Amino acid sequence: MGLKRLSILGSTGSVGTQTLDLVAENPDAYQICALIGGRNVKLLAEQARQFRPEITVISDETLLPALREALAGSNLAVAGGREAVLEAAGRKADWTMCAITGTIGLEPTLAAVRQGGAIAFACKESMVSAGDVFLREVEAAGATLLPVDSEHNAIMQAMADGNAKAVDKIVLTASGGPFLNHSLEEMRAVTREAALRHPVWSMGAKITIDSATMFNKGLEVIEAARLFNLPSEKIEVLVHPQSVIHGMVCYADGSVLAQLGSPDMRIPIAHALAWPQRLATQAPRLDLVQVAKLEFHAPDEQRFPALRLAREALTAGGGAPAVLNAANEIAVAAFLDRKIGFLDIAGIVESVMQSLGAPALPDLDAVLAIDAQARLAATNLAAAKAA
Amino acid sequence: MGLKRLSILGSTGSVGTQTLDLVAENPDAYQICALIGGRNVKLLAEQARQFRPEITVISDETLLPALREALAGSNLAVAGGREAVLEAAGRKADWTMCAITGTIGLEPTLAAVRQGGAIAFACKESMVSAGDVFLREVEAAGATLLPVDSEHNAIMQAMADGNAKAVDKIVLTASGGPFLNHSLEEMRAVTREAALRHPVWSMGAKITIDSATMFNKGLEVIEAARLFNLPSEKIEVLVHPQSVIHGMVCYADGSVLAQLGSPDMRIPIAHALAWPQRLATQAPRLDLVQVAKLEFHAPDEQRFPALRLAREALTAGGGAPAVLNAANEIAVAAFLDRKIGFLDIAGIVESVMQSLGAPALPDLDAVLAIDAQARLAATNLAAAKAA
Repeated sequence: MGLKRLSILGSTGSVGTQTLDLVAENPDAYQICALIGGRNVKLLAEQARQFRPEITVISDETLLPALREALAGSNLAVAGGREAVLEAAGRKADWTMCAITGTIGLEPTLAAVRQGGAIAFACKESMVSAGDVFLREVEAAGATLLPVDSEHNAIMQAMADGNAKAVDKIVLTASGGPFLNHSLEEMRAVTREAALRHPVWSMGAKITIDSATMFNKGLEVIEAARLFNLPSEKIEVLVHPQSVIHGMVCYADGSVLAQLGSPDMRIPIAHALAWPQRLATQAPRLDLVQVAKLEFHAPDEQRFPALRLAREALTAGGGAPAVLNAANEIAVAAFLDRKIGFLDIAGIVESVMQSLGAPALPDLDAVLAIDAQARLAATNLAAAKAA
Repeated sequence: MGLKRLSILGSTGSVGTQTLDLVAENPDAYQICALIGGRNVKLLAEQARQFRPEITVISDETLLPALREALAGSNLAVAGGREAVLEAAGRKADWTMCAITGTIGLEPTLAAVRQGGAIAFACKESMVSAGDVFLREVEAAGATLLPVDSEHNAIMQAMADGNAKAVDKIVLTASGGPFLNHSLEEMRAVTREAALRHPVWSMGAKITIDSATMFNKGLEVIEAARLFNLPSEKIEVLVHPQSVIHGMVCYADGSVLAQLGSPDMRIPIAHALAWPQRLATQAPRLDLVQVAKLEFHAPDEQRFPALRLAREALTAGGGAPAVLNAANEIAVAAFLDRKIGFLDIAGIVESVMQSLGAPALPDLDAVLAIDAQARLAATNLAAAKAA
């Protein structure tokens, strides 16, 4: 077997750099087709010099001259801007890491899906907003989706025996975030700093706030429904503060299969990278004697309305999940800007959902349109609260 | 696909009856080839009338007339005695449950293995005593071994993705038994009644005592080494009093796959029965919110020398595991007869292991010979202690 050709969409982000770390540890197994970064010229140039991709693309076209300069003398092909991103993402590859978060990642991810191959999926917002559109394209292209989100990757691993039809339900675990034991009153007064202190995972600001509100878990419920073709009632959320068990599959025979591990994204990335085989990583090993105790309890949808809202959006279908996702992105940004309170995040999302409903989403344009509408509505609500 | 032809060796025991319960719940999937029981004529006759096997065999030949009488007018074929057991066990079947415990099960199990097909394996003592002999015959016959012991079944389920070469280690969990927190002094004074009170599983007397001494886990380490072709150092034992996680597989990429479930033998039996598919059972569902907490700690080989002895036997190879198993059976019987103390069980096993060593085991006759020697030596030691 020849080298596996990889493309990385979002190579300078957290998932992208960890993917390249694993590639660097296994130099005889992989070659890089396309590296696509957003704005971090210095890191993208370093990656290009190390991995020598066929094409290196910077999304922000104004930074292309800087990238050219940084790669002067390297004899490497470079490009910049939206069209270049789509061209590079659509080049034939055996495996593509799709790790551009937010609405900006929708089109490049779709371009990667259309070229076929294995699609490692680390952009849950895309799957939430444009799930139906994505899944149709995945089927048409014969692509294979490999979830990289630790919970969904866990579910995929726990379904390895191919008995999806015998699944009673799946369980996504949630650390519960920093406010697991806060009262509603205490949550009302939560500061930006407190919300950014996640007890287990070290992540970016947006996802850390989503963990604190549990919108992250709500988005994951929607993502899981799409990836595994399950209704809301077959997707359980279980609070598990130690975050050692990432996901479980409960079968009709009474067996429960679970994936466990240290909270290190290299583990699910490595699973997707080597699938259907496995490779060795330097990720820290799980030591259950040291962990000593795993705890579980049911989530509280009163204090964490995000879960209820996500299930409502999932059941409503159409554009409702896209509305929830977009409104949440705006509300989180407003909270991080100290314009609204912590509990206002869910309040704004619920209001926008109520006003925009669940219009049909025939194509990506419709997704982008409802996404824009939801952002505008959420921005207005946040401004009103800040005033 | 036609009906799956099943034979049950040990149909009137705990595993045998639970297997037939599952067959009864799925009457359109299975037909019974042979039912083989030991001495329980009444139950065996009831099973035969319900499942209408091609042949019903009672192992104790003196009970054949009683079986004939119990099945008078049923038009069912019956037989009795050792030769009849071997003939019936050797009939071609798609799937055979081998659930005759102890040395008496060795030859019938071997006959089942030789006819090929899938072999559900619920007689760990056979695998411990005659493992090399068994595995050679399994390979020669092209049979498929499906472990039914809950821990080994868990490992098989957690290896479903076919990456056995990427396994760093496997973990067998142990409830720790009723004396988990006893001091050595307290263990010395343990009574038969206290040892028979297992905190989680409801099982026969022999295996309950083996749980209390942890010889059960020691035998399982040896069984796992044989079934999964792993050295002692890649098989970890983890004390987990709730017995919710039955076994885990730790992969080189940092992922750990685990099988969990209520402590109900129908779950692993159903997995083996339907493999590679799954069927629905009435077994109680795992409710982690109700369980609330899973605990783990390292086993104490000082207070539970059985684990150390089992690893020594595994490493020594040859007849050493057969000696450990036979000496333990005799010592447990002596303890149940109140002839020796609780700590004498391991003491006798260690003495017999030291005196008999690890002779080569070329065939089943050699297994039976060393088994008999070990029983004699253990019987003498137990008598000396009782005197």
